[in-house]
Amino acid sequence: MLSKGKLKFIRSLEMKKHRKEEQAFVAEGPKIIHDLDGHFACKLLLATSAWIESQVSLPQAEEIIEVTPEELSRASFLKTPQEVMAVYALPTTTLRPDVFENELTLALDDVQDPGNLGTIIRLADWFGIRHIFCSPGTADGYNPKVVQATMGAIARVQLHYQPLLPLLEELNQKQIPIYGTFLDGENMYEKKLSNHGIIVMGNEGNGISPLLREKIDQRLYIPNYPTGVLTSESLNVATATAIICSEFRRRQR
Amino acid sequence: MLSKGKLKFIRSLEMKKHRKEEQAFVAEGPKIIHDLDGHFACKLLLATSAWIESQVSLPQAEEIIEVTPEELSRASFLKTPQEVMAVYALPTTTLRPDVFENELTLALDDVQDPGNLGTIIRLADWFGIRHIFCSPGTADGYNPKVVQATMGAIARVQLHYQPLLPLLEELNQKQIPIYGTFLDGENMYEKKLSNHGIIVMGNEGNGISPLLREKIDQRLYIPNYPTGVLTSESLNVATATAIICSEFRRRQR
Repeated sequence: MLSKGKLKFIRSLEMKKHRKEEQAFVAEGPKIIHDLDGHFACKLLLATSAWIESQVSLPQAEEIIEVTPEELSRASFLKTPQEVMAVYALPTTTLRPDVFENELTLALDDVQDPGNLGTIIRLADWFGIRHIFCSPGTADGYNPKVVQATMGAIARVQLHYQPLLPLLEELNQKQIPIYGTFLDGENMYEKKLSNHGIIVMGNEGNGISPLLREKIDQRLYIPNYPTGVLTSESLNVATATAIICSEFRRRQR
Repeated sequence: MLSKGKLKFIRSLEMKKHRKEEQAFVAEGPKIIHDLDGHFACKLLLATSAWIESQVSLPQAEEIIEVTPEELSRASFLKTPQEVMAVYALPTTTLRPDVFENELTLALDDVQDPGNLGTIIRLADWFGIRHIFCSPGTADGYNPKVVQATMGAIARVQLHYQPLLPLLEELNQKQIPIYGTFLDGENMYEKKLSNHGIIVMGNEGNGISPLLREKIDQRLYIPNYPTGVLTSESLNVATATAIICSEFRRRQR
């Protein structure tokens, strides 16, 4: 049975403030719970008896509570609750100092839509990008909506929330390539692309902020088609990130 | 002033049933209203006095009503109403019989999320794809959420709602290439891609339905990275569509 206190605790994790205080976040559904098992410390798992009985072995968790579908509905952040949900400890991030010399990474400058952030984490995972640097104004990656949109990829991609300007300044000094997309950038398909460095993606409405733009030495353009006939002014940020990551990885094959 | 009857009429257009009965849909915000001007017959335009005064010339409309911000809020489908909104007549679609011999087109098999559909329409426009064939189970393109997510691209991309199986059967007979993505498909970067035909994208949860799968003669795979290390099981449908369209268009340059 789910106590009122536990229900209140879970529901409180919808808000960033409470996630920070409790150092915890929520994920839901068999697929994501399975993907997160072993990657994050599970403090509490709620599951229906049907789901529990269907498992060969249960995920690791400090506490497992069998709940009725009604109890799960009350705790869930989904329109259609999915048999199982869990509370995990927020992870600590680790970063090797030579990551930018060896890996392709992403930086998000105030990407505000949780769906976009979740989609970007998911595609970063697909393309083997393990570190995303998020400006403090970027949506919180442990928002339940983001976690769900990652489809479990949040277990494999680390999010680093920090101001981006000092980071890019440091990378400039180390001559690490810094990429970004601009309507007047160079044709991405024809430009040399490195196998390491950082790709900066901007806010949904305003793009990359002016101070960061100055630090970007590799200005890319995703050609539209037919070339030169400008129709839509831009692509959605998650769409653009996908196309760019695909092109970087195509070159590395 | 906005009458109760007109307010009720606008609000009713949130539902597909009413959009069909009234043969009308809603769009909001200066950018989208500007993009749609001249592409769809505008039946009614609501705007604040500030917006009206800021315009050199007003969009074509059967009727323009100056509204207070409060009236606009009541009519709007957005969290943050944006000075102007309008009701347009649903368009009639036109299709040349030789379109599949000459153009690249898309087919959506039950893409249900309005945000995904809007994103796909927007990127189709970017990549010069002018026709999208939507199964009857696909989200309605004139849903206010979809229209907003297209960022105006709905003015330039035609949506054709029809059962996909007879269409694909016909294309099979005419030997038009039919593309789709599969986890066991051929590496997209290495496969010959045509400059015409149709690309089928599937439902968010279930992918392409079994009957349609049989009709797809060009099975593509978007390689993940590092190749062979399967992490995420799939990409979001809008993400995958973006990557595929980008690759088709790169080859045609």
